[in-house]
Amino acid sequence: MRIALHVPFGAEAFVAALREIPGAAPVVATTKEELSAALASADALAVMASLYDQETADAVAAAPRLRWIHFVSSGVDPLLRFPPPAGVAITNSAAAWAPTVAEHAVTLLSALLRQLPAAVAAQRERRWAAADLRPRLRSLEASTIVLLGFGAIGQAIARRLKAFDAHVIAVARTRRSHADVDEFATVEALDEVLPRADALVAVLPSTPATRGLLDAERLARLPRGALVVNVGRGDTIVQDALIAALADGGLGGAALDVFEREPVPADSPVWTAPNLIVTPHLAGIGSRALAGRLAAVCADNARRAVKGRPFATPVETSTLGG
Amino acid sequence: MRIALHVPFGAEAFVAALREIPGAAPVVATTKEELSAALASADALAVMASLYDQETADAVAAAPRLRWIHFVSSGVDPLLRFPPPAGVAITNSAAAWAPTVAEHAVTLLSALLRQLPAAVAAQRERRWAAADLRPRLRSLEASTIVLLGFGAIGQAIARRLKAFDAHVIAVARTRRSHADVDEFATVEALDEVLPRADALVAVLPSTPATRGLLDAERLARLPRGALVVNVGRGDTIVQDALIAALADGGLGGAALDVFEREPVPADSPVWTAPNLIVTPHLAGIGSRALAGRLAAVCADNARRAVKGRPFATPVETSTLGG
Repeated sequence: MRIALHVPFGAEAFVAALREIPGAAPVVATTKEELSAALASADALAVMASLYDQETADAVAAAPRLRWIHFVSSGVDPLLRFPPPAGVAITNSAAAWAPTVAEHAVTLLSALLRQLPAAVAAQRERRWAAADLRPRLRSLEASTIVLLGFGAIGQAIARRLKAFDAHVIAVARTRRSHADVDEFATVEALDEVLPRADALVAVLPSTPATRGLLDAERLARLPRGALVVNVGRGDTIVQDALIAALADGGLGGAALDVFEREPVPADSPVWTAPNLIVTPHLAGIGSRALAGRLAAVCADNARRAVKGRPFATPVETSTLGG
Repeated sequence: MRIALHVPFGAEAFVAALREIPGAAPVVATTKEELSAALASADALAVMASLYDQETADAVAAAPRLRWIHFVSSGVDPLLRFPPPAGVAITNSAAAWAPTVAEHAVTLLSALLRQLPAAVAAQRERRWAAADLRPRLRSLEASTIVLLGFGAIGQAIARRLKAFDAHVIAVARTRRSHADVDEFATVEALDEVLPRADALVAVLPSTPATRGLLDAERLARLPRGALVVNVGRGDTIVQDALIAALADGGLGGAALDVFEREPVPADSPVWTAPNLIVTPHLAGIGSRALAGRLAAVCADNARRAVKGRPFATPVETSTLGG
């Protein structure tokens, strides 16, 4: 099995992991020319979503033997624009990114609860703001957190929240039970759980079912002063509605790592919305364990492909349609 | 057993919990006059450290029957200035404050690792700083955290750090084993573990043994770019040495909730030190569970006192001396 590798960094780790697998032959393609050449004979492509552009899609469409595309990213968003050829299996690497995305999400939420933006603002004014800040302080402990999305990332967030003794309500397509979750709700019951949320953490991919899911009406169902964190995809929250709710005090604060348009344009109201923390789409970055974990997820799938077994991290392409 | 209550807030919760105990009679003393009157016949005093001033110490010294002082605070620092009368037992409430202090400490550390101060600064400039921030991002996962102090607060921090898959080295007076700790080191071995720390979290009380413990020499043993968080007492770190290490890049960042002098004066170099997050001594505040937990710790000790059993949260007053 020849596997073309088209990734922006860390190709060595993938090559090393794939070379361990009898029957797998990695081919690094740095440029689009190298990618086209590699796909002329490759059975599989391992690619980062950020490199999956028109040229990559053209090379994929022309690839005569391709039967599997593995995304080393968590999201497979480019497939919305460039649907994969029929019969090509899709896998992703959400599980590899999950621990760091979860850490970033919990950091953003706890920074809001512990009033770090207000503390930093007082610090700039050389002001000991204990009297201002103390009444505004909240904690994860004994707070109810609604977790919207319960794949690998949602589960990693739940585990961290439970260590702080938060009450975790997970909203997922199906109800189930999980050691780190206090309650499950189906997506249909979302409107019923929102009024109980001290904070909502969204970890949704962008699909026809999730786009615009958190609109003005749903945000208004949150209790006054609730917090919102988004580390999924920006278009799952109606951004103008979120900013309006921050401005009128309906929401007490928010933290976004993802946006309707990225990079956020300089004239966007995002930059000046009150009580909003902006991080520029980096939730998954920064762990020493990431490169090894990405290579391991790719190699695990490759090993299964060589042996004709089911993939470990399949993406249901049916949910991407529309 | 008559128990005088001298607390700045939440007296009702203490009264309700103490009234459940046969033989315990709480007496609320809001003013210093009420305190003197109550201590004329009280067997015990439950007091917040912030209210333990010269007048309180005088009333304690004059109390004919007093044999137990319970601090509803975590620290018992006033006893350094006003040593308790001989034969008076001392207890504290560190266990009740621990979950929130731990949450604040982990929030400060993860905010530093996830570059939130730099993200907020870029946001003020309406700048999408992904390229700047991504190479600077770090994570708790796979980082080595040296935890200096392993009482109730240190243990609560360790539990939270483990949920993020950090490598936790606890430094304590005695070695032991603990599910949330990867390695123990004695205080004597502190200099040997500092060079391995991605971050140092200090949770020490102020005692003759801890004052100035983290001086310029010890801070210099940390690897270049290491982070320091202090939620214990300000005088356990030599503040000028910390600021100098931040200024010369020896330290990558720091976050302090406690200071050598509080409130921090407006002309202090603390306010403008680079890569320093300042919160104004509020780490323990903000959990819905706090009031009930403080009352429960007080009531547990009172129940033991009535029955002549050992206290649950004794303070070794011998360590306070000098």
